[in-house]
Amino acid sequence: MEDKKIVMKFGGSSVSTTERIKDVAQLIIHRKEKYNHIIVVVSAMGDTTDNLLSLANRLSKQPYNKEIDMLLSSGEIVSASLLAMHLIDLGYPAQSFTGFQAGLKTRGQHRKSQIENINPNKILEALSLDKIVIVAGFQGMNAEGEITTLGRGGSDTSAVALAAKLNARCEIYTDVAGIYTVDPRIRPNAKKLKQINYEEALEMANLGAKVIAARSVELAAKYNVPLYIALNTGNVEGTCISNKEEKLMSENMEEILLTNISKIDDVLMVNLENLEKIDKNVIHCFVELADANINVDLLNQMLLKDHHPAVSFTAHQEDKDGIITILDKLEFDYLMVENLSKVSIIGSDMRHQVGVAAEAFRVFVEEDIPYYMVSTSDISISYVVDTENAKQLINAFADRFGL
Amino acid sequence: MEDKKIVMKFGGSSVSTTERIKDVAQLIIHRKEKYNHIIVVVSAMGDTTDNLLSLANRLSKQPYNKEIDMLLSSGEIVSASLLAMHLIDLGYPAQSFTGFQAGLKTRGQHRKSQIENINPNKILEALSLDKIVIVAGFQGMNAEGEITTLGRGGSDTSAVALAAKLNARCEIYTDVAGIYTVDPRIRPNAKKLKQINYEEALEMANLGAKVIAARSVELAAKYNVPLYIALNTGNVEGTCISNKEEKLMSENMEEILLTNISKIDDVLMVNLENLEKIDKNVIHCFVELADANINVDLLNQMLLKDHHPAVSFTAHQEDKDGIITILDKLEFDYLMVENLSKVSIIGSDMRHQVGVAAEAFRVFVEEDIPYYMVSTSDISISYVVDTENAKQLINAFADRFGL
Repeated sequence: MEDKKIVMKFGGSSVSTTERIKDVAQLIIHRKEKYNHIIVVVSAMGDTTDNLLSLANRLSKQPYNKEIDMLLSSGEIVSASLLAMHLIDLGYPAQSFTGFQAGLKTRGQHRKSQIENINPNKILEALSLDKIVIVAGFQGMNAEGEITTLGRGGSDTSAVALAAKLNARCEIYTDVAGIYTVDPRIRPNAKKLKQINYEEALEMANLGAKVIAARSVELAAKYNVPLYIALNTGNVEGTCISNKEEKLMSENMEEILLTNISKIDDVLMVNLENLEKIDKNVIHCFVELADANINVDLLNQMLLKDHHPAVSFTAHQEDKDGIITILDKLEFDYLMVENLSKVSIIGSDMRHQVGVAAEAFRVFVEEDIPYYMVSTSDISISYVVDTENAKQLINAFADRFGL
Repeated sequence: MEDKKIVMKFGGSSVSTTERIKDVAQLIIHRKEKYNHIIVVVSAMGDTTDNLLSLANRLSKQPYNKEIDMLLSSGEIVSASLLAMHLIDLGYPAQSFTGFQAGLKTRGQHRKSQIENINPNKILEALSLDKIVIVAGFQGMNAEGEITTLGRGGSDTSAVALAAKLNARCEIYTDVAGIYTVDPRIRPNAKKLKQINYEEALEMANLGAKVIAARSVELAAKYNVPLYIALNTGNVEGTCISNKEEKLMSENMEEILLTNISKIDDVLMVNLENLEKIDKNVIHCFVELADANINVDLLNQMLLKDHHPAVSFTAHQEDKDGIITILDKLEFDYLMVENLSKVSIIGSDMRHQVGVAAEAFRVFVEEDIPYYMVSTSDISISYVVDTENAKQLINAFADRFGL
């Protein structure tokens, strides 16, 4: 048996019922054959968090984040203690810990706090007694002694941070069997990726892949924590994320290797038109959008032939009213296009291969799909297209690049 | 405004829905007119604790008390944070605290731990900021940093202990409008007691009155905490418990003054028969009952005419099988009578008035009710009767003693 530790993380749907908690326990016991020290991080059962928030909405018109954190923290305490008692019942010593008891010290705002540090003494003590450690994810305690939560994807962050502190491998169990080249709901025969690096995973997370949050990948990359994303049944090989430079196998060495195609829906695009040569209104516009908490995603600015600038940006459909208010107030001429999707192709090999963009553009011609914006990074290209064309485009890309 | 503190405690049925939590908030705000420092102790919402225990039963054949404590502690955290956010929403600064955050240090076994001490600093800090303090009842943390719960009536104990530490009055709000001379479900026109002393309240609690647990009364008596038991709507005058010697008003100064008639159902009586003159088996029997965690309530032993002893004891119906196992093992001849109730009359004046027992026995003759056992204390007399006769007996007692 390797004398190594693993952190296993299970999300809300993996522990949504007592039956699923039993399945999770079996998977933990199976891993116990290989690893003698196991730390488990769990989310709240199923819809618990949503149900608690709905109670809160009935009792207060505004969200009081300090109290919401207190409220939500109860959900993970329930799943952690239930899992622990079931493991004990099966003959495997276990102990549950709140985020505070597990030593997670947080800072920053309530409902989106960060992990400042972890004091692992209580966990190490339990591991030394050969106990399986079950930690309530998503939560910790700040310097004022208040319970805080870590925001969306918080349990993943708890898991990666614990793995970093304990020098452990981190396994994230979820409803999908790993990371695919294309979302299997769009392309059922999409290939699963056995191995990708942090940079690719991060780009995927930022560009719409929902399997793991960018924040957790960044943390894993920073501390070089090997991540493994797999199905919560444990019987299908998942995806490893590390800094290894192992490449995907390809029969044709010259073939362009992409790792993933991602899609984000509900995109809205705005073109600002008839701008002055140096238009301070454009700066005001982005300041006001930021003040209104409206997130601008893609932003393109270029000089037209008459040396007047043209500006395009995309945002989320839900911010439509807020954007219109600001544009009208600043008296812009603008064009707004709705019902768009952002389709991105991602691969760390792209920086070495000039041909990807050319191949990609050829797909647009062949498929006769119009696009509204293009934006590129080192390892990805994103296209804004009509949502009704997105699926056709993704499948055409997948065919072209052999995903 | 008096510069005094009060602790207000609300049980599970008082916070069972968001609507009832709103009612509780209104009552707190009403008290805020008179008291500038309010500490509220809440139980878990309605059936939460039972539902959590039912989840636990599905996942483990045995109760693992350390994990059960962790699990149950979540319930009070939910109700405390919901109440706090509603008060904030109404414009009254408030803050919720887990038992640990409120400084409740516990010791002893899980699921029935005791409060060792309270570090009130966090509470005092919040009070100094003019916040209403909401404490999750029923829970604390032991020296090992583990969450423990205080057992049945634990939230009452949290409230009384906080009141003792903070030199506060303690108000227990519940489903009944105070303490009555007779359970109003048995005798709808029973009188409510405005004022009783700790000793009387303790005897009532021990003899079946369910309004407040003996443990909380003992704690209040020890630290001289004024207790007030009232309806959770706040619009009906309740019952004060203190060490004041104020007496109930009576028109006839010679009238026998009782404060309460209580009843406990599901009583089982055992008579051990044909015993030896000095029967060591009797001692073995009580040792084995104690080892099996079977609580013997009333115990009478007397010498019969032939100098052989006779022993009778009562226990709870649920322990029937355990008792039979032990009696058979020790080869006793015994008589077991089931479906009995223990009816008790209580009054601190009884010690000064020899006539009570005589009056009480006259009731049995007049009503033609047989009784199986009688047991007396300084301030109470308990009778074991058939459950089918208990209600008739209670009403006859109430008529006789003007309750």
